[in-house]
Amino acid sequence: MSPAALERRARAIEAAGLGIGWTNGDFGRGRSYRFNDPDGHIMEMYYEERKYQAPPALRSSLKNQPQRHTGQGVGVRRSDHWALLASDVAANRRFATELLGFQLREQVIFDQGKTELGSGMSPTAVHHQLAYVLDVRRGRGRLHHFSLWVDNREDVLRAADILAENGIFIEAGPAKHNNSQGFDLYSYEPGGNRVEIYTGSYLVMAPDWEPVTWNEHERGSGTYWAARCLRASSSTARPI
Amino acid sequence: MSPAALERRARAIEAAGLGIGWTNGDFGRGRSYRFNDPDGHIMEMYYEERKYQAPPALRSSLKNQPQRHTGQGVGVRRSDHWALLASDVAANRRFATELLGFQLREQVIFDQGKTELGSGMSPTAVHHQLAYVLDVRRGRGRLHHFSLWVDNREDVLRAADILAENGIFIEAGPAKHNNSQGFDLYSYEPGGNRVEIYTGSYLVMAPDWEPVTWNEHERGSGTYWAARCLRASSSTARPI
Amino acid sequence: MSPAALERRARAIEAAGLGIGWTNGDFGRGRSYRFNDPDGHIMEMYYEERKYQAPPALRSSLKNQPQRHTGQGVGVRRSDHWALLASDVAANRRFATELLGFQLREQVIFDQGKTELGSGMSPTAVHHQLAYVLDVRRGRGRLHHFSLWVDNREDVLRAADILAENGIFIEAGPAKHNNSQGFDLYSYEPGGNRVEIYTGSYLVMAPDWEPVTWNEHERGSGTYWAARCLRASSSTARPI
Amino acid sequence: MSPAALERRARAIEAAGLGIGWTNGDFGRGRSYRFNDPDGHIMEMYYEERKYQAPPALRSSLKNQPQRHTGQGVGVRRSDHWALLASDVAANRRFATELLGFQLREQVIFDQGKTELGSGMSPTAVHHQLAYVLDVRRGRGRLHHFSLWVDNREDVLRAADILAENGIFIEAGPAKHNNSQGFDLYSYEPGGNRVEIYTGSYLVMAPDWEPVTWNEHERGSGTYWAARCLRASSSTARPI
Repeated sequence: MSPAALERRARAIEAAGLGIGWTNGDFGRGRSYRFNDPDGHIMEMYYEERKYQAPPALRSSLKNQPQRHTGQGVGVRRSDHWALLASDVAANRRFATELLGFQLREQVIFDQGKTELGSGMSPTAVHHQLAYVLDVRRGRGRLHHFSLWVDNREDVLRAADILAENGIFIEAGPAKHNNSQGFDLYSYEPGGNRVEIYTGSYLVMAPDWEPVTWNEHERGSGTYWAARCLRASSSTARPI
Repeated sequence: MSPAALERRARAIEAAGLGIGWTNGDFGRGRSYRFNDPDGHIMEMYYEERKYQAPPALRSSLKNQPQRHTGQGVGVRRSDHWALLASDVAANRRFATELLGFQLREQVIFDQGKTELGSGMSPTAVHHQLAYVLDVRRGRGRLHHFSLWVDNREDVLRAADILAENGIFIEAGPAKHNNSQGFDLYSYEPGGNRVEIYTGSYLVMAPDWEPVTWNEHERGSGTYWAARCLRASSSTARPI
Repeated sequence: MSPAALERRARAIEAAGLGIGWTNGDFGRGRSYRFNDPDGHIMEMYYEERKYQAPPALRSSLKNQPQRHTGQGVGVRRSDHWALLASDVAANRRFATELLGFQLREQVIFDQGKTELGSGMSPTAVHHQLAYVLDVRRGRGRLHHFSLWVDNREDVLRAADILAENGIFIEAGPAKHNNSQGFDLYSYEPGGNRVEIYTGSYLVMAPDWEPVTWNEHERGSGTYWAARCLRASSSTARPI
Repeated sequence: MSPAALERRARAIEAAGLGIGWTNGDFGRGRSYRFNDPDGHIMEMYYEERKYQAPPALRSSLKNQPQRHTGQGVGVRRSDHWALLASDVAANRRFATELLGFQLREQVIFDQGKTELGSGMSPTAVHHQLAYVLDVRRGRGRLHHFSLWVDNREDVLRAADILAENGIFIEAGPAKHNNSQGFDLYSYEPGGNRVEIYTGSYLVMAPDWEPVTWNEHERGSGTYWAARCLRASSSTARPI
């Protein structure tokens, strides 16, 4: 939130033994502090950023919109959140809330509080900008997915139409999650990372928000509603 | 389409040995001719119909709308189609096209033309108002589902929200079919019949429409895109 | 609906003194009969049509869709209707219903039945595929607008975003009509003709449909709801 | 954001001569500090809040949703912003940014910087939770409108259908603003206050956000696109 806050966070992370060091910045941003989370993901934080200036052909007729509506695709507005796999969700969740200042929003905890499967948290009103999800294969530093925001549920359906038309694998969705109430689909970008097209959910503005916790029974499959294929062989109905 | 057409159809069905006889009509309609399709479903046809007059409390401020928008539920506009199970799809499809004058729109035929799994047809521009689907249990006179039309895909999503909130089973969807391009979900009404909330699809106005036929490979699951649950245990991604 | 029907209609129009003559067909269609409506619009009717075959790059992964979803624009599905200006709406309406076999669906009639401002009619379940609108300038053979169908109201809003981004004039809408219940916007294509992006409305399948007639009071502006600009100078509210 | 922050803000407002005093709280919340903005609107701020517990009949099947989806109306998710009239927008804007800590997001300034017509600002990622709009009648302490958030543009259209069906005045919209990019309509609640049904817009998370300023030319009517009625008498088109 400020150059001073950046310095303070860097010192705290360094003191926790997770620091890597300062960089001279990268494309579009100033110097940044590089560090690891407990699971080994490499992260950077920075304050200075060069604001995007669209080239003339991409300027919008809307003065408050950074780039024109091209009429193509689904019009992603912003990135929404990153979901990272972690062998120890609790340790990484504490790292993000205690050292980075994120607020915990929702958790999935099984086995009567013993197994933390996932935790979502955020430093802003956005429901979660970071989530840790249990890495059942016990890998290290792995990504579960990143998420791109669209403004309406109809845009997620449009994404499905475009992906299906182009023969691009839709791994799940369109569907509505119970956790976070997000409406989304999952696919893969050409580099091999899972990407979610996402909308819905809800904002959190309470400074004393009480995290919502879901157990096995409450979570179910994690979907609130979602398609299953109707199998012709099992279709039954009463005679009319 | 006319009293004379009703008489002609009745005679043709009687000649085919499928007639039951005339009734004195039923609630809201005049005399009707009752008959069986080859699979044993009981059907009636009629010409005279008493137009619905909404009671004062349900009159719409729109003169061309039969009932007011109550602000509740999803606002079904009309019934769209009936899908009937049949042990011999081809025989029933011929009945509907040859004796009732329906136009064949799409078919699913497996085994190099030998097994007709389903056929959709219609007497109007609506894609299909009647479908026969193979009854793999070899029942008789059974219903697969009936279908209610809503005007926008968003209304199907709203139906999912309402059904899920009320703990009512959603059997499949929201999803998009490849056959007919319908966007829909399936649930059950309290009487036990499967009901589809349906939109999308396309109208057919060509008098010489050539039916679209799908084989095993082309049809796949019958869904163009639809949700699958994302299983945490199988989630894989490259390290970031 | 058939080659024989084409011949019958041509003879009837010729007998009415409105025929021009047969052509050898045009791009994509067989021989056609050319004629005038009473207002002088030139029309053609035909039966033979060459079905569109998309080139390989534009083939859809959906076997029942004539062209792929390109992900661009709003994905118009079909033309919906043509609205023609006419100095004498009643004469042209009678022409279309009596000589062409269209069914009258809705009318706007002012002055206690004396002035027919507009009439919409159709030969199919589509609410109106042809409308005559009073030409208050007493021109001859003029077009009011043609209409392109999209599947969801959200697509009309998307059209507004795309048109506004490109500085293309939106003459009216997005708004909902009371007549026909269409949800639409009006713009102009580069050739100078008014084009409507249209959805909603309702299908008519009753052979004995009773036309809906709107008088001055009922019709109002013709819009059921539509935007007006909120003028800051007139904004009033009670003190809080 | 904390009890201490509440005390600090109260002291600062008191020092500015705008304080009224502490209350013992009100329905659902703890003690609050009451004060005036420069235009005379009475405001309160508090930290303690009793979280809403839905009665059993209104509990949602979604654990993270405070109340069930009733299937009625448009499902407002939250209040979005309050727009207050002020005789001196600049003075009130400085009050909110300097004393309350709001971040300025967008402004409308005419006459080459001399006349501030409106300013929107927020203490969170929501685009604006408070706006001051010039009170051209030079009243005092007046409300322009309050705004209720729905999740999709389709919900604003649904609101229009419900309001029109019930004969409730829609003052403007559905339409898209250029300022804030909101998609909305305006009506009045039974108490006589203008209420906006609102969605779209964009979130702001940059600590160094640069306010977007619109002059006369850029702002136009304040609408990006919106309906106008199509007047039959002015409809012109080239002959076809």
